[in-house]
Amino acid sequence: MLELPGSSLQQRYGAREVYTLRCRTKDKPGMFAKVSAAIGDGGGHLWEVKITGLEADYKIRDIQVFVRGHKQLEKIVELVNSIKGVELVAVINAVLELHRRGSIETVSRVPIKSLTDLRMLYTPGVADVCLEVEREPNLAWEYTGICDRVAIVTNGTAVLGLGDIGPLAALAVMEGKAAILAEFVGVSGVPVLIDTREIDEFVETVVRIAGGYGAIQLEDVAAPACFEVEQKLKERLDIAVFHDDQHGTATIVLAALISALKMMAKKASDCSVVILGAGSAGIAISKMLLGYGFGDILLYDSTGAIYRGREKNMNRYKHEIAEVTNKDMEKGNLADGLKGKDIFIGVSRPNMVNREMISGMADGAIALPLSNPVGEISKEDALAAGAAVAADGRDINNAQAYPGIFRGALDARAKDITLSMKVAAAERIASLSPAESLLPDVLDRALHKEIAKAVSAAWDAEA
Amino acid sequence: MLELPGSSLQQRYGAREVYTLRCRTKDKPGMFAKVSAAIGDGGGHLWEVKITGLEADYKIRDIQVFVRGHKQLEKIVELVNSIKGVELVAVINAVLELHRRGSIETVSRVPIKSLTDLRMLYTPGVADVCLEVEREPNLAWEYTGICDRVAIVTNGTAVLGLGDIGPLAALAVMEGKAAILAEFVGVSGVPVLIDTREIDEFVETVVRIAGGYGAIQLEDVAAPACFEVEQKLKERLDIAVFHDDQHGTATIVLAALISALKMMAKKASDCSVVILGAGSAGIAISKMLLGYGFGDILLYDSTGAIYRGREKNMNRYKHEIAEVTNKDMEKGNLADGLKGKDIFIGVSRPNMVNREMISGMADGAIALPLSNPVGEISKEDALAAGAAVAADGRDINNAQAYPGIFRGALDARAKDITLSMKVAAAERIASLSPAESLLPDVLDRALHKEIAKAVSAAWDAEA
Repeated sequence: MLELPGSSLQQRYGAREVYTLRCRTKDKPGMFAKVSAAIGDGGGHLWEVKITGLEADYKIRDIQVFVRGHKQLEKIVELVNSIKGVELVAVINAVLELHRRGSIETVSRVPIKSLTDLRMLYTPGVADVCLEVEREPNLAWEYTGICDRVAIVTNGTAVLGLGDIGPLAALAVMEGKAAILAEFVGVSGVPVLIDTREIDEFVETVVRIAGGYGAIQLEDVAAPACFEVEQKLKERLDIAVFHDDQHGTATIVLAALISALKMMAKKASDCSVVILGAGSAGIAISKMLLGYGFGDILLYDSTGAIYRGREKNMNRYKHEIAEVTNKDMEKGNLADGLKGKDIFIGVSRPNMVNREMISGMADGAIALPLSNPVGEISKEDALAAGAAVAADGRDINNAQAYPGIFRGALDARAKDITLSMKVAAAERIASLSPAESLLPDVLDRALHKEIAKAVSAAWDAEA
Repeated sequence: MLELPGSSLQQRYGAREVYTLRCRTKDKPGMFAKVSAAIGDGGGHLWEVKITGLEADYKIRDIQVFVRGHKQLEKIVELVNSIKGVELVAVINAVLELHRRGSIETVSRVPIKSLTDLRMLYTPGVADVCLEVEREPNLAWEYTGICDRVAIVTNGTAVLGLGDIGPLAALAVMEGKAAILAEFVGVSGVPVLIDTREIDEFVETVVRIAGGYGAIQLEDVAAPACFEVEQKLKERLDIAVFHDDQHGTATIVLAALISALKMMAKKASDCSVVILGAGSAGIAISKMLLGYGFGDILLYDSTGAIYRGREKNMNRYKHEIAEVTNKDMEKGNLADGLKGKDIFIGVSRPNMVNREMISGMADGAIALPLSNPVGEISKEDALAAGAAVAADGRDINNAQAYPGIFRGALDARAKDITLSMKVAAAERIASLSPAESLLPDVLDRALHKEIAKAVSAAWDAEA
């Protein structure tokens, strides 16, 4: 009996998953047609196909298949195996396979082909670099890799939508972020797992190791600790510190809204915004939209609307944001809050919003249900309920924002990443979006470099 | 007037340095002959030559030149510039140029060509890896990069022969070591600069960040702190911890001695050894040679011979080593100590030993003056004074040892690097050496993999 790989993600969320079916078929015409028909009959979506082995009378193919739920996978396996002349050799979880041995590695920029290479790269030659940097520490930006190197720091307390899974379980996310930095903008991301939940220990550890980096990317640190961690690191370090879950998300949301407003010919200052989720993303989006000049903002958490003087389930950061949002002191539930509003942004949990809530919004409403892997409401439902524009976490991803922001900050040797740099990034992203899209193509490397230029220029203009 | 780059290394040690002369010559036969003659007349050694530009009537070449001392460089520049039709466009310090923007970078192992790639590498797919590792932490060795990742950790308190220059000035060394790991054995080295001189702070910091690595390489931490740091880290971590200045050096020295003894048809147990330098390398070499079964060992520091009961300039580690070395309680100076001895190993400072000292050694003496960038005595002087075998820091470099040791430890998922693993590495290195050499070709990648296999097997045999 063939062993089928599990998928915790699928079990927990019913999200669509990719498997690779390694399939040995008799080498005669029409065999693959039978296999692909079986996949379709089982409800699977056939994706890429590769020949991975040739035997005397057999072909071996790796077939990528998207399925929803393990039952569907089992059905497809049964159907394929029942075809005469076809054998499933293995069923592989394609995501795990892609992450096998990690998604990043360190490479040498210098080929070591001769002893001279070795003696210039390492002892005794490298001593000359050491003495130059000892004499003038700023030369480390020229003669070491810190000009391109970012620490991606986490303690794993708020990983994706998975919650507090600890730093080791979060490592694959940090590696994925580093792979994106490398591929898109040539920045060397280095995952740094910090095994503590104490704010001061976390800060102290980052400060002690920060010397090897040109910037710090905080990642997947739970709110409200993340706010204090970031604030303390900014005070103690003279390199840029950027919590991506806050500011990367806020930047890309602002970019999408700028595009959406342009499509609808609306002005930011005329728009009221409801944000569901008062964690790192919700708070940061609120601040950024206020800074950009949006109209009133109303923030909801699991307790309800956040207003000045609320007592239940508050923290310092919610109190602060309550001072500058919710001008009308609304205290009702989310359905009440959404009535007549222009923009909904969800950064909370799957399926928190229904069609009725959206249909109560103003004409031409914009809905961004961003929770992962499943939104607060599906785009389809949001549009059916009357939203004029809808986009979810698949459309709006901080991978569009943070690579250019870090490349720009490093190129400018920025000591901080300021509001004006983030706004410059958002405006540049929006300006690069095709007319019919909220955001540009995340895979287009040239666009990330344009964003970096805008961010560098914004730092230079402030400095 | 052309600006000439400086070289602190050259100024401090008079070591030979590499410069690149960027030279614009009239495009007619015989011109380069004039340039190369001028370099020779000035006393420089011409190395590689590359064409780096072509103009209508001119060629531009980058010419590598080895010189000793800045005066020599100035002379060569003057001579070359005096040739009609030749212009020196720039004089570049080739070592600094090689290290520009650092010698390593992070790259993605996964091409990101489609949104499917992105969604498997990063959100939402990566969540599946997170949940698998949360369920079974050992899977991090399969689905993240820790199977290939080594932290190269320093506080910069004893960098090469340069002393306490701090972590930032040491960074280029850590990068060089990482580049060697990547090129030779596919290990991802990650420089980690730790900004503290306090032993417990250092240890605590490394423990907090260790989760992202499969092993820890300590580097350039001053003795005696390095011994305590290593001991405490070994106690607190369940991954391999290896201080290269101690054990990498000891391993490669043992390998060279095994080869030398084979050449001379001598047995280790019959040989008396004098080691000059009681820092990290000297202490570790002493222990390793004792463990391997060499005869009496006599250790010298700046105060003189180390013996049981000595009071001046001692520390816990010198006291410990005094218990098991210097059986005859010799208390004289180095010249006395070397009389009649078989092996001299120098891990101290340049020019500490003269010909007379070597000539007092036993017949068939082996001299390894290893201090960098200039030995305790030159090989030529040692041989002239009667040594049968001599090798210096250019011949004997821990870059021959540590890549295979780390590759082997990671492949075995070793929780420690034991004496038997180090001895296995040394014996394999010696066995791979050509008949006429102490050590094999450091550039031969296949040999590093052989060393790794021996190290893995030694761990498996113990476990």
